[in-house]
Amino acid sequence: MSNEQLDKLRSELDEVNLKLLELINERARVVQEIGKVKGKQGVNRFDPVRERSMLDHIAANNTGPFETSTLQHLFKQIFKASLELQEDDNSKALLV
Amino acid sequence: MSNEQLDKLRSELDEVNLKLLELINERARVVQEIGKVKGKQGVNRFDPVRERSMLDHIAANNTGPFETSTLQHLFKQIFKASLELQEDDNSKALLV
Repeated sequence: MSNEQLDKLRSELDEVNLKLLELINERARVVQEIGKVKGKQGVNRFDPVRERSMLDHIAANNTGPFETSTLQHLFKQIFKASLELQEDDNSKALLV
Repeated sequence: MSNEQLDKLRSELDEVNLKLLELINERARVVQEIGKVKGKQGVNRFDPVRERSMLDHIAANNTGPFETSTLQHLFKQIFKASLELQEDDNSKALLV
């Protein structure tokens, strides 16, 4: 009985993982678009004020169970990876 | 014109952030349920084989723009945070 329950919860987790994967990549596409616009304007891609405001937005909307500090740590990792992706795009653009 | 475009992309990003926040917390709730079932069975919560299988599932379903290695790094951080959440639940249960 409990194993059935575990299997059910695990397939639920697999579905959530796929949705997360899709959403993280969707976020990356939006960030790439932002990078392109900023690139044309000659503006620096890293914007600590904007990052702080996104982290505050997350804090304000967190209903748990994760602590806000844990979520902010995870989002900082996502921001970092996104910035690296923009930098890759940028070096590719410079090579053209 | 470009600033309007930037504002539009930024509100898009804010929406994606909120969806991500919701989904990461939804994932945490499923993991907590799994932790409860495992706790009753006296099974160890950390399951490296299952983690590997989830990472492989992510690799198989990644369509980019993020590299699979980047996504796997992000998911490992989420797994780690989830395990810590289960451990917190466990110590709370022991205190009851």
